[in-house]
Formats: sequence, structure tokens, C-alpha cells
Amino acid sequence: MPAPFHPTRAFQAYQLFAANTNVGKTVFATGLCRAAALLGKEKNRNVFYLKPVQTGYPADSDERHVKTYNSSTIRTQTLYTYPDPVSPHIATNSPPEDAEVMQRTKQWMLDSLKGAQDKSGSFFFLETAGGIHSPVMSGTPQADFYRPLRLPSILVGDGNLGGISTTMTSYESLMLRGYDIPAVLLFDKEYRNHELLQRRLKVDVTAVPPPPAYIEDPVHEQASMKKYYEQLDEYLYPVMKRLDQKHEQRFDRLEQMADKSREVFWWPFTQHETVKDVTVIDSAYNDYFLTYAKNENKELEPKEMFDSCASWWTQGLGHGNPDLALTAAHAAGRYGHVMFPEATNEPALALAEKVLEKDTWASRVFVSDNGSTAMEVALKMAMSATGRRYGWAHKAPIEILGIDGSYHGDTIGAMDACSANVYNEQVQWYQPRGHWLTPPSVHITKGQAHVRVPAQVLQQSHGTTVNYDSVATIYSVDKQGENRDPELASIYKDYIRSQLKMLRDQKRHIGAVLMEPVLMGAGGMIFVDPLFQRVLVDTIRQESADLLGYSSADKAGWQGLPVVFDEVFAGWYRLGRQSASDFLGVKPDIAAYAKTLTGGLLPLALTVTKEPIFDIFLSKNKPDCLLHGHSYTAHPMGCAVAKRSIELLDEFAASETEHWAPFRKEWQQQQEESVWSMWSPDVVRQLSFSDRVESVMTLGSVLAVELKDEANKGYGSTASQSIVQSMRRNVFTENGSEATINLFARPLGNIIYLMTSQISTPERVRQCERILLQCIQSSSN
Amino acid sequence: MPAPFHPTRAFQAYQLFAANTNVGKTVFATGLCRAAALLGKEKNRNVFYLKPVQTGYPADSDERHVKTYNSSTIRTQTLYTYPDPVSPHIATNSPPEDAEVMQRTKQWMLDSLKGAQDKSGSFFFLETAGGIHSPVMSGTPQADFYRPLRLPSILVGDGNLGGISTTMTSYESLMLRGYDIPAVLLFDKEYRNHELLQRRLKVDVTAVPPPPAYIEDPVHEQASMKKYYEQLDEYLYPVMKRLDQKHEQRFDRLEQMADKSREVFWWPFTQHETVKDVTVIDSAYNDYFLTYAKNENKELEPKEMFDSCASWWTQGLGHGNPDLALTAAHAAGRYGHVMFPEATNEPALALAEKVLEKDTWASRVFVSDNGSTAMEVALKMAMSATGRRYGWAHKAPIEILGIDGSYHGDTIGAMDACSANVYNEQVQWYQPRGHWLTPPSVHITKGQAHVRVPAQVLQQSHGTTVNYDSVATIYSVDKQGENRDPELASIYKDYIRSQLKMLRDQKRHIGAVLMEPVLMGAGGMIFVDPLFQRVLVDTIRQESADLLGYSSADKAGWQGLPVVFDEVFAGWYRLGRQSASDFLGVKPDIAAYAKTLTGGLLPLALTVTKEPIFDIFLSKNKPDCLLHGHSYTAHPMGCAVAKRSIELLDEFAASETEHWAPFRKEWQQQQEESVWSMWSPDVVRQLSFSDRVESVMTLGSVLAVELKDEANKGYGSTASQSIVQSMRRNVFTENGSEATINLFARPLGNIIYLMTSQISTPERVRQCERILLQCIQSSSN
Repeated sequence: MPAPFHPTRAFQAYQLFAANTNVGKTVFATGLCRAAALLGKEKNRNVFYLKPVQTGYPADSDERHVKTYNSSTIRTQTLYTYPDPVSPHIATNSPPEDAEVMQRTKQWMLDSLKGAQDKSGSFFFLETAGGIHSPVMSGTPQADFYRPLRLPSILVGDGNLGGISTTMTSYESLMLRGYDIPAVLLFDKEYRNHELLQRRLKVDVTAVPPPPAYIEDPVHEQASMKKYYEQLDEYLYPVMKRLDQKHEQRFDRLEQMADKSREVFWWPFTQHETVKDVTVIDSAYNDYFLTYAKNENKELEPKEMFDSCASWWTQGLGHGNPDLALTAAHAAGRYGHVMFPEATNEPALALAEKVLEKDTWASRVFVSDNGSTAMEVALKMAMSATGRRYGWAHKAPIEILGIDGSYHGDTIGAMDACSANVYNEQVQWYQPRGHWLTPPSVHITKGQAHVRVPAQVLQQSHGTTVNYDSVATIYSVDKQGENRDPELASIYKDYIRSQLKMLRDQKRHIGAVLMEPVLMGAGGMIFVDPLFQRVLVDTIRQESADLLGYSSADKAGWQGLPVVFDEVFAGWYRLGRQSASDFLGVKPDIAAYAKTLTGGLLPLALTVTKEPIFDIFLSKNKPDCLLHGHSYTAHPMGCAVAKRSIELLDEFAASETEHWAPFRKEWQQQQEESVWSMWSPDVVRQLSFSDRVESVMTLGSVLAVELKDEANKGYGSTASQSIVQSMRRNVFTENGSEATINLFARPLGNIIYLMTSQISTPERVRQCERILLQCIQSSSN
Repeated sequence: MPAPFHPTRAFQAYQLFAANTNVGKTVFATGLCRAAALLGKEKNRNVFYLKPVQTGYPADSDERHVKTYNSSTIRTQTLYTYPDPVSPHIATNSPPEDAEVMQRTKQWMLDSLKGAQDKSGSFFFLETAGGIHSPVMSGTPQADFYRPLRLPSILVGDGNLGGISTTMTSYESLMLRGYDIPAVLLFDKEYRNHELLQRRLKVDVTAVPPPPAYIEDPVHEQASMKKYYEQLDEYLYPVMKRLDQKHEQRFDRLEQMADKSREVFWWPFTQHETVKDVTVIDSAYNDYFLTYAKNENKELEPKEMFDSCASWWTQGLGHGNPDLALTAAHAAGRYGHVMFPEATNEPALALAEKVLEKDTWASRVFVSDNGSTAMEVALKMAMSATGRRYGWAHKAPIEILGIDGSYHGDTIGAMDACSANVYNEQVQWYQPRGHWLTPPSVHITKGQAHVRVPAQVLQQSHGTTVNYDSVATIYSVDKQGENRDPELASIYKDYIRSQLKMLRDQKRHIGAVLMEPVLMGAGGMIFVDPLFQRVLVDTIRQESADLLGYSSADKAGWQGLPVVFDEVFAGWYRLGRQSASDFLGVKPDIAAYAKTLTGGLLPLALTVTKEPIFDIFLSKNKPDCLLHGHSYTAHPMGCAVAKRSIELLDEFAASETEHWAPFRKEWQQQQEESVWSMWSPDVVRQLSFSDRVESVMTLGSVLAVELKDEANKGYGSTASQSIVQSMRRNVFTENGSEATINLFARPLGNIIYLMTSQISTPERVRQCERILLQCIQSSSN
């Protein structure tokens, strides 16, 4: 798959969409090719015309019409033809797959480009068939089918009665799919549709005289049309000039964006002093960013990059998802944002009900904006609950019990719930308020699945590793570790008890237990041994009040301490199961969700909990309530999108043949029945044998590769940076041709992680794996 | 304006929209009326048909067609007729205003309802003209024009070639405006459009045989059509049954929503124990919520409520704004969310540039999710800047200098920046980290504008008031108060100096000065004397380093301490000027924006600052960077909407005849040239004389009424609750008829505040004023 079928400064490409069938698309395509040829003479450029799908052929041939009224220098092509003059989806009983049609379309664009290197550039026009949502052969609406190209779209409007409406609705449907629409063209009929359209649409609208009446005699018809097109040149040459100007302006802007962005942005978590490349993301689709970067000749080149950091772990249902965009737009149109306290709206209620249908342990949903605020809410809930149950003085110095290496967000309260690390120790008001246990972790090294048990846990001077026959065994967790490893479970319990006793001796007030179940993300993609977390939860519930010396007659609803699961990263199928708590076989008392909750589209976070915790805040006194609330709490757009995302993920999870089924099947073949990943077991094994790699681990869409890093600088390490840079920049060869795909990954100390969306296909993930392997292997040499 | 033209359980209403002109809308309307009449017989209901606009009349009359093929019991009406068979916007040279057409439409619905009380209910059908975006007489697209009614919309699809596209695009445009679409109906022609449509659309699609060919002879034609409609009944009666079921389900749901919401939500800042009514917001438009509440007969009644808390101060461009919805949808379709650190995208860059174009004092934009996170970012910026400039030890106990009564958000870091109050003192980890000055405040009492100066400021045992000839004088602020009141400025300066000296004596590390310029919102709608804030900023810049005893050779870019303006509430024209800092005549070093930044649609927040503060974070060492970043940082939807909102607000501000001009004019007539409000000066004056009112104050869209509250319990007060309840619940009479509008306001201790959106019209605001006056006056009695 070689390079750019996306526009460049020299390769000016458009597609023609129409508001309806039979409104003049081919006439405008013919006229624009002529206008482009005129401009092409000045600018030494070729003109190309492509009709991917033609029905009613050969009686109808838009390509033939275009050729007839253009000079012979224009290069034209039709790819698929069908004799019936009907919609392509009923014109054939054996429709080609979308991927094949797209591949042939791209290939013709590429071949044309190669054949056009005698000139300084080219104008390319792609003519669609029928209206914008008229389907291709598979039934996919064209506006969706052509979206991966996202060519600037010239909308041919409808000059007939009713045409204002069809033009405006087509415009809106194209906008909803993220197309740019540089021009609307239509025939100037008696209804003067263009006048109102120009008032309503934020785009150039040009009306031209309609073609003359059809003449039966072909010679006369041709002469009449030839004259018409000469007249049309007067209208369309200026249109083409404006399109050309807009195109140049677009590339001027793209050229400046990196530098301008350096000047005005203060990027999050970014040391500006060391930023090398600024990735200019022109658009995104599915798993891919379309980016533009300057090559060695300082020319902008398009590059597709796989979003392999899942846009900071948010990506769920793919970039530019039209279903989510329409869901969001409907909520915006029905409500905008509406007041939430003491009020209700359908998207918010439906989302809460949907989540509680899943989280049967919970009964209450609190809504905020991001993982950090969701965790601050969880902290406020948990600490009030504990303080009130154990009758602590209002200003008792309540702390939390956590796991070392955890990360709960960037607001100061969420930071305070984490042990000191490079994220927070620079922050003036950061003040660690808790005690953190050292976690054992899961790894695969040289094909061997094992748990790394640190010295602290063993209460000895050295750590150890415990091998297991498979990753699946490690995740077969139950009470006391009976199925997996009762001996290790007992070691864990001893460690936890000793820590709780120590806290008792220090007379500390522990208000909650916090953990990221299964996977600690920002702390370094640490797969915590699920047995450890299970034993921790069990011990907290059974013994912590006694061990800590807290007593209360009230034991309703939660035991010992409230258990808070921070599932901001791991929730909603990120690890292959709906909730990361499923791996532990226990449920929390409070859980926080965000990130992929909204399918990767917009911010929304939930804190869910159960009635006994909620009840603690009930009183006749207003200030006893939970004093937290952001202005956009439960904004309908976010709630509607989150609910839709959950519905779709449930469908994915239920499918036995599609979506995640092929991935699951591959892991089942490796006897890994209870765990699965989008990353193939073979590649995981292969990576685990690399001499550059310390260990590997994967679940769901997450792959973490721990690099050997002798200095062992953790987050401060730069070990992964060169590999990440090469994934972003290198040109990859596959089967002798250059791959156009790069990986947009982010370094995390000595960890390289890749993360897909939840709609990634095996083909796309396998390509990422090959690139990753190449980059790691070449870095080893 | 009496009550409901909105659907009720007994009043089942639909509008028919079509994918194009001439696709059978009238045939389906006729058939649905027949089906409704059949069902109406069973359910004892009337059938109504309304055609608001008919062109080509009398040759064409859809109403006549409907009557011809329906029984005489159906009641029908056409409101506006024009002889030319063209679009209504060119059928007349003297188009009626939209408001008038809507009023007549509503009136006919109301009159019909009154006339229908012999039956148990009714089916109502409104037939639009042409396609969904075909305009009404003014040129407004119908889909926008009818949006305030938001009737469930039956989409008549297009069975012709190309009709898949026009049907789908029309569906999407209706969705984008928040319509519910319970059914798609179309003719079953050779193209089998319905099959693909049923696969693509999440709605019932029903195809019916097309009508027979037209017969010239009217008697035969009528017989032929009569037979056709009898055949059609077989198709449309089941459709009508399903519509009826959906309608009943919708009202079942609406009836349950309040109780279900009580069960599953944990509302923000809400004492659940004391919640009286749950406001069920079915949809929202412009300034209004459409709510449903049970009347004394336990029947659901629709009620329009003016969103007079501006949905927690977020409302900018109105609920259900189609421009913002399309802007959001385009960003969603083009990107979804994309990775931001070290990357860029057009909406984010364009927003940053737009903001910096306004905030010429600033050069850097940091993006987060809400006001609270924006302020945490501001704190991190400011405290690092100060700590590094003055060479403080890394863990020096840095504090801030603030104003008592301020509020900066609900995350713990933002809370710590506020003095103790009922919001934060219940929160376990809250720890006030600063010193707060006591502010003088602006009020109007008995028509007299004055500043209330507290005892602390005077450094005496009693406070005082200083009268001014107008509010405008109070806001004529300049250096040393020269124009306004040099003596008071000098008193302020003495107070501030003495406080700084005290802090020096206590050897405290003050890292920043924080304030909400002009208006402290959540703290009680306190209009802080702008002269005080101006003197504070000047003093901090000129003297604070000396007075506090901090020294540094570096004085680049900011003086003394970084000045942080929290404009989360007051920014972006909330108070009538683009920035609240405009009232003080000074600029901050750091500013935070959120709330109305996105026009009231979705969460997004900015922290802007200048280069010398940014530069402090530059180093070769990654952890020296600003360690803050939420997953959805700079999400394209939010950025695109914010930019569009700013563009529109700038247009509003620039207009000398429309938008805010009438409000400004009213204030200018009162010699209040430099300040203006959407609340009329007369009503403000009138309120200020009420014996129930301590003082009043207003700027921009905010009106704050301080009630007399002898217990003086501030936020804990319940003084305003009964007034707020009566605004929400009471029935108001105007000119002898009952008003359908209530006000959705929120109490804030002994303050009642009302806040409009930025698109509120004088008519709407005046109506709110009348209701407010009624409620306050009746509470005084």
C-alpha cells in the first residue's frame, strides 16, 4: 500500500456529491474538468476524472459524457459498471466488498498520480452516483463509503421545487461526516433556490443556467451541448479559481499549523523544550489519523498514522463514527445542556439505568467530567462514609490505603490519593495522604507467564517470581486463591495484615481502599496480580476494621472500608471484559468510569455506588449533601453517546462470529480461554523472547512491552523514546512496497504500550504488530 | 398564552415532514387521518388536520384532499394560502413574521383542543409543505420553524430513484434538530428503497403501494382514490396502532421519570432528603425547558419553564441551537476526539488563536474540562512561577491570597484556594491554603447605588456605605480611583497593605492572587466593588514583593505575584462585556474560562497565560513540565463549538440594532452608559424599593436580589426557597389569561438570582421580570 491518495498541494482532489439523482452532477463534473483544464494549462497540471460506479451502462456512461466535452488530454476511468439503471445495491447480486472497491479507487488515484509526473500537479475529480446517501454495491451509503478519503466535497444542489430542502439536508449529512464543502453548485431554475441557499449555508453557492433541452439527433445534441459548455466555462472557471485558492490556503494553513501550535498551545504533560515533531492531525477515521508532515524537500506529505495510543486511552468506537456523531447531534438538538440537580432528562436517566443494569451491585450514579473528578467524588463519598460510621472527629486526618504506582488523575485531591511519583511530586500542593502497598505484577518473559513478587510482599530481602502454565491460570482467581495458588494467597494475606497492623500502631485513620483493578495505566502499564487485589479486597472486608481497630455497630452495606475501583482506564471492555472487576471476581463499593465510556468522543465520567453510602449523606441539612457538581453535569450529549457506546459494545461482546470473535478464537487456540487480547498470542510470545525486552503483557486492546533499561529510571527513562520515534517516522516495507501507515504511540518510561480502539480489525492490528516488531528488532541491533 | 399545545397523553400530535416535495405527504396525511379515525372510534377520540401553509391555492389544497377522503367528523384547517405553486418564501412579497405564524398555529391547536372536550382525546396531524428544509414565508427552514413544538415527526420518504439518499439526509437533519421520528412511510416503487432504509435507520419503515394513475374525469378519479385509500387502511391502521403504542409508552416513561430519577441519580450539590419536585425536562429550546409534571388529577401536563438559572450559568446561545449542533457534529465526524499533546488539530488551534486575539495580554492556552480543573491548572502555573522566582524550597507551604466568599470549583485543590464555607468545610481533605481579604460590594437599595464597605476594610469596628449617583459611576474605575473616589481607593490600599504586612510578619509564602473579577457567583452573587479589585491588582504588582519581603532579580513579565482571574462564570459577555476584567481596566497574568465558553452545550475549559509563566516550565527534564492533562484535552467538538460561540457573540456585541442593542439602549436612557443589563433599569429600581428586598444588583444577563433575612444565615438561609418554589409552580395571569411559562430558578441562600441566555429577547426577559415581581410581592404580604 504505497503513499498518498490524500490531497497534497500539487494533487488537488475533489469529489462531487449530489443532493439527489438527476440534478446535474455529470454536467458539473464535465464543466469542472473543463475549467480545471483551463487552469491546468496555466499551472501545467493534468486533469483526472474517475467514476467508480456506473449503472445503466453502457447506455449511460458519465465518463463518456465527460470525455466527449473535454479535450483529449483529460484522463478518465470508470471502475465498476452494471447494465441496470438502478441503484448499485440492486444492480448486482454479487456485490464486491467495500474494501475492494475502495482499494481499486485508491489504486487508480495512485496510478494516475504516477502517470502524471510530467506535469507539476493535477486536478482530480471523483464523481459519485445518485445522492450522497445512495449506496454502493454493498448497501453502504456513499457518504460513509468515501469517508476514509474525506476529499473536499462539491455539493451539486437541486434547482427544482423542493431542492432547497434536499440541498440543505445533503449539506448537513456531509457536515455530520466531517466533510469540508468548498462549493455548492446548482442550476438556476425558476425557483431561485440558490438565493435562499446562499443565505443559509456557510459556503459559496453558484447557480448556472441549466442545459438546453435534449435533442434527439446526436449531431445537433452534441453541438448544442458543446455551446452550452462553452457558456458554462464563464461560470465554472471562476469557481475553479476559487477552489484552487481555497486549496492553496488550506495547504498554507497546514504548513503553518505545527509552528503556530508550538507558539500558542500549552500542551498537557508535555515538556515543550523537548518536543520534536508536532503531529498535524488533519482528520481521523476509524483507527487512523490523517496527518501532514514536511518531507526532506519541505513539502507537506500526507501520512496515515494508526492511533496506537488510542488518543490517551479514550478510543472506543473509532474516530469520525457517524453513529455517535448523529447521537450527539440529536441530544444537542433536543436539549443542548440542561440543568441537572433536582431535574432529569432522558439521556441521563437512560445511561444511569444502563450502567446499573450492568453494575448490579450498585444503585446510584453521580456524573462528572473526567476520571480525575470522578475519583474526587469517590473520595468524598468514601471518606464521609467511613468517618461517619466510625465516628471520627470531623477534621480527623483521614487517609486512604492504595497500591504503589497507582494513578487517579491530575486534580490535587486525586493526586493526594497516590504515592509520590514524578507526576505529582513537582506539584506544590501535592501531599500524599495514605499508605500504599507494593504490588506483585504479571509478566511474560521468554514465553513464560509469571508473577513478579516484590521483596516487601514476601517480607524478605529479595523478591521472587512464580511461574504459571498460562496467563489464563493467573487470571483464574477465586477466594483464598484456591484454584490458583493458595500458598501465594496466604503470603499476600500475611503482607496485607502486617501492613494494616502497622497502620493501627500508627493510629492512622484509613478512609477507603483505592485501586485500579488489574491494570495500573499511567503508573507504567503494570498488570497487578489479580490474586493480590482479590485477597486485598477480601481481607479489607473481613478483617480490616478489627486489624485497624475501628469499631461501629453499623455494618450495613459495606464491610471494613469502602472499596473504590478506579476503572477509568480499564472499564468498559478495555481489557476484554465489561469491567476489570470481573477478573477479580469481586465488586467494589464505589467505581469510577470515564475515558472510553463515551466511545472516545467527548468528556463524561461516572462515579457509581450503592445505597448505604448514598444514605450517609441524607439529612435535613443541605450542607450534609455531597458538595460536588460541575456545570455540565450529565450533559445530554455525553450521556446519549455513552449509552449508545455501551449498547454497541454489548453487541460486539455478544457476537460469536464478528467484532471480537476472531481475536478471542486465536487466544482460545492457545488454551487461553478466560483471557483474550486483540494482540496475537504468537506476537506476544515472539516479543517476550526479544533480547531488547524484559517482559510483555496484554489483555483486551492493551499491549505493554517492558524494555530492558539498565538504569531502571521508570517514568524518567528514555528507553522507549527512540522506538516510539521510529514507529512514528520510519517508512515500513511490506511485500516489497512501502507501507503508508505509521504508528502514533506515546512513550511511558521504559514501557512501550500500544492500544487499539474497540473496532480494530485483526488485519489492522496485525499490521501494527509487524511495525512494532520491526522497530524493536532494529533497535536491538 | 394559555396552556398545552404540547402533546399530552390524550392529545396525540404529529407533524408530517417529507424527504422531498411530491413524494406523497398529503396521501399519507389523508391515510393517517383515516387510520386515526378508525382508532379514534375505538378510543373515542377526535381527529384534527392542520395545513399551516398552502401555496398554489385554491387549485391545490391538501386540506380539501384530506377532507374528500375522510369522514366528515375530522376537523381540518389551512392557515395561510398563496396562489403561486412555488415555495412560500417566494409566493409572497409581504411575508408574515415567524412569531405570528407560530402563534396562529398554536392557537388553532389550542382552539381545537377546547372544541374537542366532548371526546376522551384527539389525534392531531400537522402537514408541512415541501421538504423538511423548505422554507416558511420568512425563509426560515420548516425544520427550524417548527422546532419549538418538537412534535413527533413522521418522515414521508422518497420511493423514487435517489430517494434512499433524500430520505436518509432528511432523517439526519431532523435528528440534528432533536426531533423524535417514530415512523418513516414511503411508496413501494420498483427501487425497493424501503428495504435498505429499514436496514439503515433505527425506526419503523413502512412501504405502501403508490396511488393509482391520475384519471382526468373527477368522478372516476375520486372513485379510484377512494378504493386506494380503503386499501391503504390495511397498511396505515397498523402503523397508527404502533404510533399510538409508542405515544402511550412515551407518556408511561414520562410519568415514571421523576421517581426513577430519584432512585438512581446522585444529584450534584443536592440534599436528596429535601428534594420536593423533580423537574422532568422532555426537551429544551431557546430559553425554555419543556417539562412535564403531574397536576392535581395525577395527569401529566406540559409546562414551559424559562431556564432562569441558565442551566447552572452555562447557557449562551440557547438550548437546541442547530448551528452549534451542526458545528459539534462536523467536528465529531471529522475527528471524534484526537490526541492532543505534541499534536494539533484545526478546531483547537483556531480556538486558541481566537481567544488570544481577544486576550492580547496572553500568549498560551491550556485546555481542560471544567472551571475547577482550569483553576487547578492556574494554581499549578502560578505557584510554580512564584516558587521558582523567589527561590522557595520545593516543599514550602505555598498559599494564595484571595477574596473572602470566592468560589473556584469543587475539586479539592480548587476548594483549598477558597476560605472556609459551607461548600467545602464538610469535605474531609479540604484545607484552606491562603489568606482572604474581606471585599466591599456593590448594591442598589431604594433606587440608590452604593458600595457596602465592611468594617475590616475600614479597619474600624463598623462598616459603612458610600453612595454614588449611578451604577455606571461605580464601574468607572481607573488607577488610584482618580475618576471615581480617590479617598476610598486610598482606604482600600491601606487595608491591603496592612494585610500584606501581616502576612509578612507571619512569614507566609503567598504564591498567587486569585479573584473572580466583578462578580463572585457561587459565593452568593456578590458584586465586588471593582475599585477594590483594581486597587488590589495595582498594589500586588507595585508593592507586594516588598511588602511581603520576597526578592528576586527576575522581574520579567509579571510583578509581585501572578494575578489569576477566575472568569469561569463572568467571562465571555456574561456581564455584558467580553471579559469581566474590562470593568477593572487591568489584565491578569492567568485567566480561567469555562461555562458559557461553549455556548452552553458541552464541557470545555481554558487556562490562558503569558510567556514568562510558560517559560518557567521549560527544561530538558520532562517532570519539570506542567503535570496536568485530562484525556479529552482539547477535544475537537468542544473547541469547534467554543470558537463558533465566540464568533456569534462578537456579532451580537457589534450589532447596533439587534441582539443586545435594545437592552443597551434602555440603560443608556438611564444615563448608565458604561454598564448595561438584560434586566430593565425600571424593574431593578422597582425591586430595590420592595420591603422584602435588602438590595438588588445587575450586569449583563445576571440579576441578583438580596432578600431581607433577619437570621442572616447566608448560604444556609432558606429565605429564597419559597419564592423560587412559587416561580417554578405558580400559575401566572397576564392580561386575564393564564401564562404557561414558569421560571426554573435555583435558590442561593438569601439571594434570588435570575440569569438569561445570551440570546434572550426583551419580550422574554420582561415576562420573567413580571413573574419575579409577582412572586416577591406576594411573598411580602
